[in-house]
Amino acid sequence: MSRVKISVIGAGSAAFSLKLVRDLCLAHSLRGSTVSFMDIDEDRLNAVYSLCKRYVEEVGADLKIEKTLNRRESLRDADFVVNTALAAGHDRLREGWRVARSLGYRFGGSFHVMHDEAFWINFYQFRFFESILEDMLDLCPDAWYVQLANPVLAGVTYLSRKYPEAKIVGLCHGFMGVYHLAEALGLDPGHLDFEAIGLNHFVWLTSFRYRGEDAYPLLDKWIEESAEEYWRRCPLSDDLGPKAVDLYKMFGLFPVGDTCTPGGGSWPYWYHVDENTERTWRENPEGWWENYFRGLEENVNMLFRASKDSSLRVTEILPPRPSGEIVVPLIESIACDKPRILQVNVLNTGNLVPGIPQDFEVEVPALVNGGGIQGVRTLGLPKRVVAYALRDRVAPVEVELEAYESGDRDLLLQLLLMDPWTRSKSQAERLLERMLALPYHEDMRRHYR
Amino acid sequence: MSRVKISVIGAGSAAFSLKLVRDLCLAHSLRGSTVSFMDIDEDRLNAVYSLCKRYVEEVGADLKIEKTLNRRESLRDADFVVNTALAAGHDRLREGWRVARSLGYRFGGSFHVMHDEAFWINFYQFRFFESILEDMLDLCPDAWYVQLANPVLAGVTYLSRKYPEAKIVGLCHGFMGVYHLAEALGLDPGHLDFEAIGLNHFVWLTSFRYRGEDAYPLLDKWIEESAEEYWRRCPLSDDLGPKAVDLYKMFGLFPVGDTCTPGGGSWPYWYHVDENTERTWRENPEGWWENYFRGLEENVNMLFRASKDSSLRVTEILPPRPSGEIVVPLIESIACDKPRILQVNVLNTGNLVPGIPQDFEVEVPALVNGGGIQGVRTLGLPKRVVAYALRDRVAPVEVELEAYESGDRDLLLQLLLMDPWTRSKSQAERLLERMLALPYHEDMRRHYR
Repeated sequence: MSRVKISVIGAGSAAFSLKLVRDLCLAHSLRGSTVSFMDIDEDRLNAVYSLCKRYVEEVGADLKIEKTLNRRESLRDADFVVNTALAAGHDRLREGWRVARSLGYRFGGSFHVMHDEAFWINFYQFRFFESILEDMLDLCPDAWYVQLANPVLAGVTYLSRKYPEAKIVGLCHGFMGVYHLAEALGLDPGHLDFEAIGLNHFVWLTSFRYRGEDAYPLLDKWIEESAEEYWRRCPLSDDLGPKAVDLYKMFGLFPVGDTCTPGGGSWPYWYHVDENTERTWRENPEGWWENYFRGLEENVNMLFRASKDSSLRVTEILPPRPSGEIVVPLIESIACDKPRILQVNVLNTGNLVPGIPQDFEVEVPALVNGGGIQGVRTLGLPKRVVAYALRDRVAPVEVELEAYESGDRDLLLQLLLMDPWTRSKSQAERLLERMLALPYHEDMRRHYR
Repeated sequence: MSRVKISVIGAGSAAFSLKLVRDLCLAHSLRGSTVSFMDIDEDRLNAVYSLCKRYVEEVGADLKIEKTLNRRESLRDADFVVNTALAAGHDRLREGWRVARSLGYRFGGSFHVMHDEAFWINFYQFRFFESILEDMLDLCPDAWYVQLANPVLAGVTYLSRKYPEAKIVGLCHGFMGVYHLAEALGLDPGHLDFEAIGLNHFVWLTSFRYRGEDAYPLLDKWIEESAEEYWRRCPLSDDLGPKAVDLYKMFGLFPVGDTCTPGGGSWPYWYHVDENTERTWRENPEGWWENYFRGLEENVNMLFRASKDSSLRVTEILPPRPSGEIVVPLIESIACDKPRILQVNVLNTGNLVPGIPQDFEVEVPALVNGGGIQGVRTLGLPKRVVAYALRDRVAPVEVELEAYESGDRDLLLQLLLMDPWTRSKSQAERLLERMLALPYHEDMRRHYR
């Protein structure tokens, strides 16, 4: 048993904070622990705080809930710092997309423009991540930094290189697409064994076993017999849609979760070259993002409604059973030395995924226990997949990080010249100029010279 | 002093063979050596043979010249095997280009389509390279294999991985662009010190010193004061043209020789998006290649004329002074244990250029002596340059090699999907279909299924 202090930065993400508290209430070995919610949005912070308080009381858990607008206060003596925050809001993201779209950019492998890891979002995220790490090294140098906020790929790479003394891990539930696949195939997840590796939002099913047997033949059968039927009912841009199956046929491994969905950047471009092509592949990244933003908004509204309605039992909305998120299992494994294999994002130190640079992020299973997080050395990915990882993930992120570190505007232009929708230097220059000219990007303007 | 046997495969490349003999005549420590010219084109072989014989007689060198149509005979007991051969001719290359151009492909970073390392050329080269290596391991397993034939990048990577027991090195005179730069700047090459590293056809001037001082300021001055004047007189697509200078400004290092010229694939695409853009940058890859092919043809014609005109003194056309090529210096350094630093293409074993996979080709200076070839471990390239190397060189070549090894046609399609001019999957599919449908590509059709 271990009492820990968990600081949640960006706690106003209601769905996340509630799940965290729910899982903590169920983790008896962590009883007596403290959760410190921190956000700069006071209304949302208060709403989350009151709901979570009520949740703890309803289940009678031994868990202390705190709230603060002051980040340093939340970080003080923390054992775990969970970062879910978005420094610049979605309005800016979407305004940037409108600008880019008017210049010919489309969704589809455009990771730093038509994606929620756009350069004009990541800039503020990097700065924000750094400021948290700096504070942590001051206030809680032994704490684990758990990054859920995007960009996980670039963020873990950047921070782990810059703060080798810090304990850094990225988590993302994209890999849980495997459970979605299992569900579609009618498999009981309790008998599933799998390995899904690569980089964040680019993970491939290197092993898929059911009751001890290779389950790829079941997938092939499903594709043969049931996929068409499934596709008639599933939403557009589904992670088991025809695009995912086509990628599986081309690459020999199934792309898991966000690997090819809009959430992961709708990689690769060739399914998205025009609306007709997208229709053929049952793709609609635009609509997918609309739904995503609508869902977020509904969540916030529900949060406020529920926080004001004291007659409501929170446990009725959210019954006390494990959420499936791995944040609390990770915390418990480390704090209580309870070994688990969990999917993490860490540097590739030790060549966990051969072919990816060792100072770059990878997503792999890891042994997590009191000793920390030890990524599993895997047999790796086929050359063709590594080639695309280098080309479409490693290369642009290296340019982005060098641009960010140097403040060199030419490098930011380089990043745009790598985008699959950039057709000329002048197009990329126009995009850069127009983005930097937006009034609220004064800091970014000053940074990139 | 050391007597060696040098087997030249593809000896019909008249310009190369004559230069080789000229340099050998000057390398006194190699006197008594034998050069075995091998080609499948009997007329060219005879012409080269008779000219080289005359050359040796004119200068009175102690060098034995042999010729054969039989490759195994030439390889038998060879100490060095120099490969300059092109298995499939330029006619096929150009017919392929015409097909590709009609489908929207352009010169400009299109390494495996609009380049002389096109996939329908490389296929035959790989097969041919392998067959030489197989024969060598049988007939002269201790010999050095010196590859001058393209693709040097993919060839050295492929062969060095597949035949770790063989002694393999690639040579390319692209790096000599540094001397062209020095000449333009009015520098005496005798006082020049430089390092140009990267991958073949992608080398960057990491160090440039003149009389012990950093010479980059002289380059900056030249750009400021004299480049415009130079550009008014230089041919289009010159390696010191405005494109090279613009790349220097963007990347912080000067791109050497073929790095951005048509000979190296006219990288990157954004100077070539249309004819207007090319005019702005004084680029014309099309015309450059026309000149190149015309030059080759003239060389062959001159070869035949000269070989028939016995009144001509060959040493008058080609006075006996070092050609500047590094093939003979390399042979001499190894055979006579005469240490030299020479520019070579080898695997990146030992992390000579950090950031490039260790099982991939790099171009670096190496210490060459009786012990062999030892690549120099360099301080490497900026992240931005490594990023482009991974993206535009490593990634497609990995896919190409995996495609070649597996015979998987889908992987060949993947390679085309990485081309900067591919705009849709159907475009890439059409190109592949039309290339494979050409009657003389029967072997390639059978290979890629």
